[in-house]
Amino acid sequence: MNQIGIISMQFARPFTVEHFVLFNKIKKMGFDFIELLVPEQGELNLKDTKQALDDAGLGVILAARVNLDRNIASADKKKQQCGIDYLKYAIECSATLGSKIVGGPLTGNPLVFSGRAPQPVEESERLARKDRCLSGLAKAAAYAAQHEILLALEPLNRFESDVLCTTQQGIEILDGVDHPNLKIMLDTFHMAMEEASIPEAIRLASNRIGHFQANENHRGFLGTGSVDWTGVCRALKEVEYKGPISLEPFRRNDDRFGVPLAQWRQPHEDEADRLSASVAFLKSLLTLAEFRR
Amino acid sequence: MNQIGIISMQFARPFTVEHFVLFNKIKKMGFDFIELLVPEQGELNLKDTKQALDDAGLGVILAARVNLDRNIASADKKKQQCGIDYLKYAIECSATLGSKIVGGPLTGNPLVFSGRAPQPVEESERLARKDRCLSGLAKAAAYAAQHEILLALEPLNRFESDVLCTTQQGIEILDGVDHPNLKIMLDTFHMAMEEASIPEAIRLASNRIGHFQANENHRGFLGTGSVDWTGVCRALKEVEYKGPISLEPFRRNDDRFGVPLAQWRQPHEDEADRLSASVAFLKSLLTLAEFRR
Repeated sequence: MNQIGIISMQFARPFTVEHFVLFNKIKKMGFDFIELLVPEQGELNLKDTKQALDDAGLGVILAARVNLDRNIASADKKKQQCGIDYLKYAIECSATLGSKIVGGPLTGNPLVFSGRAPQPVEESERLARKDRCLSGLAKAAAYAAQHEILLALEPLNRFESDVLCTTQQGIEILDGVDHPNLKIMLDTFHMAMEEASIPEAIRLASNRIGHFQANENHRGFLGTGSVDWTGVCRALKEVEYKGPISLEPFRRNDDRFGVPLAQWRQPHEDEADRLSASVAFLKSLLTLAEFRR
Repeated sequence: MNQIGIISMQFARPFTVEHFVLFNKIKKMGFDFIELLVPEQGELNLKDTKQALDDAGLGVILAARVNLDRNIASADKKKQQCGIDYLKYAIECSATLGSKIVGGPLTGNPLVFSGRAPQPVEESERLARKDRCLSGLAKAAAYAAQHEILLALEPLNRFESDVLCTTQQGIEILDGVDHPNLKIMLDTFHMAMEEASIPEAIRLASNRIGHFQANENHRGFLGTGSVDWTGVCRALKEVEYKGPISLEPFRRNDDRFGVPLAQWRQPHEDEADRLSASVAFLKSLLTLAEFRR
C-alpha cells in the first residue's frame, strides 16, 4: 500500500516548532507522513523536527518552494545559480530530516504567485529556458544522488508556471536530464486543468513517477469534487506506483463573494473529520483498485 | 435547439475588417454565431461589421474585456467609473451590432492576466468590493434594459479573478442586484476548476443562466478532454436553457516544454475539421439529452 501524507500548509504556514503537537493528531487521522514545505533558513531546527516526527511515528517528505530569485530557468546567471543552490539546500534538509524525496516545481518560473502575467516567448528564449533547466536539474540530480534523495519534478497548471505544465512536457525534461535521481511528480489538481485524461497521463509517466499528489479539481477534500478517483487508483496500480501520495485540500469551505480562492488561507474550522475521511476513502480505493468485482 | 457560437479569438486577436472573410467559413463549420470581443474604440466599424455578419447569415454576441483601469470592483473612484462607462460602451456596441447579449467577467478585478499575485483581503475590503460591484452592475443593468440587452456575469477561475469564481458567488451577486437584465454566464473551463460538480452548478443557476460557454478542462477542442458533456447537456435540458452556447478551444495543439499555455497564441495549423466536429458533437448531444434510450 502506498504511504498517504498531508501537506503541512493544511494546518499552518509557516510551519514551526509550535505546530509539532499536530504530528500525533495527523498520525491519528490516518496519515503515514507529512509533506513539509522546505523550511527557510532558521524556520525550523531540523534535528528537533526529526526527533518530533520520530516520536510521533510520522514519516516526512519535502516540497521545494521556488521564486523568481531562486529560479533555474532564469536568464540571470545569479538567479539561476541561486536556484541550483536552493535545490542543494533542499536536498541537505531532506537528508537531515530523513526524507527520501524533494518534490515540487523545480524548473522554477512561477507565474501568478510571483505577480507575472502570461507573456509571449520567443523560440530562442524557450529553448534557452529548456537548456538552463536541463543543466540545473542535472547538477541537482547529481547532488541528490550523493545524498540518496530522489528529486520529483512537478508540472503546474498554466497559471502557476509558463515552462512546465503537462506530463508530456515533464517527460521531455526527464529524457533530457536522463538521471535516475530525477523523476516526475504528478498532481491531479494541475492535471485536471491540463491533461486530456488523468489516467492516460499516469500511464504516460508510468515507472517514472517519483511522487504523487491526490487533489480534487477544486482543491477541496478528496471525494468532494469531480476527479475520477477510481480511474486514478486503477491507473496507479496499473503502472505499479508504490511511492507516496500526498493530499493538499486547502481550498477551505468558504464561497462568499470576494473570498480570494487562490490565496492561501488558514483553516477557519476543524477539518479533522474530512481529512480522516479523505485518507480512508483513498486507502479503500487503492485496495479495491486491484479488483474488478 | 440552442444556437452554437465560436469566440473570435479562435482565429485572430484583434479581430478586424480583414477577418470578415472568415464569417462564411465559420457559418460553414456549423456555427450559428460568433462571439466577438467588444471592439476597442476604432478597432472595427460596427455598421460594416453588422453588414458583413448579416451577409454571411451569422449571429453575434459580445464578450466584454475588463482590466484594472476599467474595473467596477476598484476602490479608485475614477477606475470604478471607467468600469461602468465601459459596460455602457459595450452595451451600445451590442445594440449597434444587433447582439442581444454582453457577457464576461463584468465584476472586474482581473488577477493573473493583469500581473496581480493573489493577496489576502480584509473583510472590510471584501464587503466594499461587493458593494461597488452591486452598485456598478445595477447601473449597467438599467442601461442594458434601455437597449434591450442582457448582461451575463461570468465567474472566472481563482487565478483569473479574486472576486467572482463560483456559481454560488455569482448567484449572491444576482440576488443583490436583482434586475431582469442581469443573469449569469457559466463557462465549463472555469467550472471544471472551481465547482464540485458542473451539472449541480448548472442546476443551481437554473433559469438565471444568460449565456453558456462549453469548454474542455484544458481548453482543447470539445470532446478531447475530460468534461462530462452528456451530464452537461442533460443538466442544460433539465433547467430548460435555450440561450446561446459558445466554444473557445484556443489552447492549441502544442505541448513542447516552455510553450506558455495561458498566453493567447494564434492558430499554427488549420483547425476547421476539429471545430466542425466539436459543433456537430455538441449539437448531437443536445438533441440526445432529451432521451434516455
